[in-house]
Amino acid sequence: MAIDRVETYLETHRGDFEEQLKELLRIPSVSAQPDHNDDTKRAAEFVRDDLIRMGIAAELIPTQGHPLVYGESLNAPGKPTLLIYGHYDVQPPEPLEPWLSPPFEPTIRDGNLYARGATDDKGQMFTHLKAAEAWLKGVGSLPLNVKFLIEGEEEVGGANLEKYVAEHRSRLACDYAVISDTSQFAPGIPAVTYGLKGLAYFEVIVHGAKNDLHSGTFGGAVANPCNALAVILASLKGADGKIRLPGFYDPVVPLEDWERAEFAKLPFSESEFQASVGVTSLEGEAGYTTLERKWARPTCDVNGIYGGYQGPGPKTVLPCKAGAKLSFRLVPHQDPATVAQQFREHVKAVCPPGVTYEIIVHHGAPSVLVSVDKPGVRAAVRAIKAGFGTDPVFMREGGSIPVVGLFKDQLGIDTLLLGWGQNDDNLHGPNEKFSLADFHRGIKASAHLLAELAAEVS
Amino acid sequence: MAIDRVETYLETHRGDFEEQLKELLRIPSVSAQPDHNDDTKRAAEFVRDDLIRMGIAAELIPTQGHPLVYGESLNAPGKPTLLIYGHYDVQPPEPLEPWLSPPFEPTIRDGNLYARGATDDKGQMFTHLKAAEAWLKGVGSLPLNVKFLIEGEEEVGGANLEKYVAEHRSRLACDYAVISDTSQFAPGIPAVTYGLKGLAYFEVIVHGAKNDLHSGTFGGAVANPCNALAVILASLKGADGKIRLPGFYDPVVPLEDWERAEFAKLPFSESEFQASVGVTSLEGEAGYTTLERKWARPTCDVNGIYGGYQGPGPKTVLPCKAGAKLSFRLVPHQDPATVAQQFREHVKAVCPPGVTYEIIVHHGAPSVLVSVDKPGVRAAVRAIKAGFGTDPVFMREGGSIPVVGLFKDQLGIDTLLLGWGQNDDNLHGPNEKFSLADFHRGIKASAHLLAELAAEVS
Repeated sequence: MAIDRVETYLETHRGDFEEQLKELLRIPSVSAQPDHNDDTKRAAEFVRDDLIRMGIAAELIPTQGHPLVYGESLNAPGKPTLLIYGHYDVQPPEPLEPWLSPPFEPTIRDGNLYARGATDDKGQMFTHLKAAEAWLKGVGSLPLNVKFLIEGEEEVGGANLEKYVAEHRSRLACDYAVISDTSQFAPGIPAVTYGLKGLAYFEVIVHGAKNDLHSGTFGGAVANPCNALAVILASLKGADGKIRLPGFYDPVVPLEDWERAEFAKLPFSESEFQASVGVTSLEGEAGYTTLERKWARPTCDVNGIYGGYQGPGPKTVLPCKAGAKLSFRLVPHQDPATVAQQFREHVKAVCPPGVTYEIIVHHGAPSVLVSVDKPGVRAAVRAIKAGFGTDPVFMREGGSIPVVGLFKDQLGIDTLLLGWGQNDDNLHGPNEKFSLADFHRGIKASAHLLAELAAEVS
Repeated sequence: MAIDRVETYLETHRGDFEEQLKELLRIPSVSAQPDHNDDTKRAAEFVRDDLIRMGIAAELIPTQGHPLVYGESLNAPGKPTLLIYGHYDVQPPEPLEPWLSPPFEPTIRDGNLYARGATDDKGQMFTHLKAAEAWLKGVGSLPLNVKFLIEGEEEVGGANLEKYVAEHRSRLACDYAVISDTSQFAPGIPAVTYGLKGLAYFEVIVHGAKNDLHSGTFGGAVANPCNALAVILASLKGADGKIRLPGFYDPVVPLEDWERAEFAKLPFSESEFQASVGVTSLEGEAGYTTLERKWARPTCDVNGIYGGYQGPGPKTVLPCKAGAKLSFRLVPHQDPATVAQQFREHVKAVCPPGVTYEIIVHHGAPSVLVSVDKPGVRAAVRAIKAGFGTDPVFMREGGSIPVVGLFKDQLGIDTLLLGWGQNDDNLHGPNEKFSLADFHRGIKASAHLLAELAAEVS
């Protein structure tokens, strides 16, 4: 059978794959640092050349920032098409001091490969390239059509991908997308992430007097924007953790019974989680477990707050301005624009007199929920079982991955979020790592995914 | 009569006094800027030498910071002793751009002398030197005993004065102190300031997780210090502007009828005040006028607030820390230490679960209230009438002048706060000024004060 030849190819090329990944990891493609622009381009060329070498037509697509890598193999007429997304750029490695080995000198310790980008996302992205290579080199063809879209601005939130996708909907047409840029639930517990929260991010700036005043001379007669801001922010949630915007929960669908049962079965220790975070207690919306709160209930957090004197010691100033950045994480059916309107109405209702305010809408993204009954999800479950030797669990995630919403909006397709990483892989931090065992399991799962999707999806 | 000779001296030396003040103002004695340390010392020497020239034994007293100038003339046995306090240091002149003439090149425009320190406090302090000079040079002796204590760290809140006063109580023993470092009520309306508010200044720092977290992954499960801080701060005051610390108002004595009547008679326009500050409405404690709130009711203001991400744009962080600086202005009988305890109890009661906090006590000062029936106040009223041609009004002030409390505590004496400045003199700002007419009126009032105190106080 074809899949046997694929697996044989994978087994006999493990060392090659590791060496190739190390080569990619040696390129410091830090998209945020302009002095690394040449390196970032080199990483794009590496990906393009790897695709070309395995027989996939690939090219660099220039953008106003870092280039996109696009490749396609459309030689499976009548078969479904899979869009494989990943990113070749990495976070800055700083601070360097805590790294036990240099961030761009990939080093193996205890079965883990340590390097910036090891898991986010060079290592995970590379699994899909190697899976395609195994089919093309081991069998001679892919079992379905694939399109690779590998970007270089994921870590800097560049808008170039969004623009490209919107302008190339037919070129990117597909049945599913797959992204490996998340984590398993835990070591030995691979997962299908079927839900992401949405985001509604605001900044509220409160203005008082036309300039800072002496708090002794003017205090008690002139409203204080810091105090007013505190009133606004304190009003957003009740002591029960419920968000108090009018109508906020109206569209929220209750968690389904099977989801609560599935979450409850997961080996999650609240006390271990609490200790790992370092808090005195876990707090959140009344009536829900920690996993339910993290994954499936809307939340509200102040992300930053500022106003008045922030230097050392005291200063007796009555500030003329104070502001806060805050965001709501949304669940399915909550619309960021509606939440923005609800937020405006709420602030209007609770803002104390004597100050004015402005609201900046920074960012909005709807949440994502993929029905676990979709053929693509069924295919992914079988592929993961083949790759990892165990059934995946179904999980959701509190964060947002904007590209998933982008694909849904522009291409009308669902994305399979199949993370091969671990929660302790130190993405964005020092000593980022990727388990080599998971690397190879991910390649195998991806190779099976191509076959399973070809069989399942029509 | 002696006072006639004093007045003659004043009349014939107006030009000299102005030139001498200009000379003092040319010295950039910016106590906060170490590269001006030599200048600051020069200003101290200028004051010392001016005292010596008129016949007062004077010296520089070294401290760990800028020197004190001390001078005394104790040749009036059986007469009261007046301690004259002032400061020769000035605020930094920056920003320089808005100054219409250079801050250390004194320039006369429209009868005002423009320079850094013109009114705060070189110009006002100098009035008392020139008054003493007029007695010593015009009459040959002072009508009472005087002690000058002129410091160089008022603008940097140095602790050296406090140390010196505590260690030299008998040297500084006196019947009254006088300070001219405040303002008249308005042009043409000189004032005796008989009350200052006290201060209790705190910083509360709220801690959550051991490091910043991703607000998507952890939001809703881990308490947010910014949100918790907002709850704490919002709880400090009710919608009626009343401070909600338990027992906070217990020692507060109601405003006396004569005070409310006196305040109400003052030519104060709430609408003009509102427009000058630039707010949409004046806000404060229910049941009190703006002047009553500013001068005689306790207040609570957040002076600064910080936490999480403050840069441009959004960042989805769940901060591990947030803090606020806040202060209560106190009225007579409120004790800063008691308020600190009330604040601790209040925060303990309202702080949401899942976070910890620490409270830093930055600064405390009791309020000051001088009975207007004191002989010294009666003497000051007559002196001001002689100098300014009109009776002073009685006012209070929302700010704190720590040296007044220091004199009360260490020397057991009341301070006469006789301000010759105006509210629009731009203390601490660009284009600081002092009316030359007020400068000369202040000298004359001070000269009369020496005689009036000698007659009134035994």
